[in-house]
Amino acid sequence: MKNYNKISITEDSRIELHDKLGLTGAEVSINTLPAGANVPFIHSHKNNEEIYAILDGEGLVIIDGEKITIKTGDFLRISPSAKRQFFAAPDKGIKYICIQVKANSLTAYTQSDAII
Amino acid sequence: MKNYNKISITEDSRIELHDKLGLTGAEVSINTLPAGANVPFIHSHKNNEEIYAILDGEGLVIIDGEKITIKTGDFLRISPSAKRQFFAAPDKGIKYICIQVKANSLTAYTQSDAII
Repeated sequence: MKNYNKISITEDSRIELHDKLGLTGAEVSINTLPAGANVPFIHSHKNNEEIYAILDGEGLVIIDGEKITIKTGDFLRISPSAKRQFFAAPDKGIKYICIQVKANSLTAYTQSDAII
Repeated sequence: MKNYNKISITEDSRIELHDKLGLTGAEVSINTLPAGANVPFIHSHKNNEEIYAILDGEGLVIIDGEKITIKTGDFLRISPSAKRQFFAAPDKGIKYICIQVKANSLTAYTQSDAII
């Protein structure tokens, strides 16, 4: 495999990077919900932890029935089994990155994995 | 463990989320380099794939001696063994997310891991 891959994202729609970048440890998607829109289903995961980075806008996520407001600069970890659904605010869209990784897969990081 | 954790990031400095969010499958950091600045070392990894999301600004990354320009909206995958160093542009800072995951750790994702 090439030692790196790069992609430039300019469109405002859902983009999945796993295949485009040849990812082997994560799926990363960029998602946009216009004002008043929501992901049309509730979902959970078998094994994957999800990490959400809110890039722009405002909205709400319902996690196991709990309503959590979200806005630009927020980051969330959600456990695999938690039932989740994302909503844009009624008057404002939301753009976010979703990172899917296998729960408990990270064995070392930063100082313990880096070679300088 | 709680079924989710949330943090709001407002500062423009390096922030590491692993411990703050209780991540188990990734380390995620938010990084800012002012105009003319650079990460002061070249590094590679033992086992971790890195994924970079450029949130704002412009810069350059040198990967195994190759110079690659980067700007808002770019996403990169970098193999563990690749030697990398990040630079802001001389006249413009850069803000980016770095995601560290164990290479080859993802066994299923999206449709194959989700429960709807």
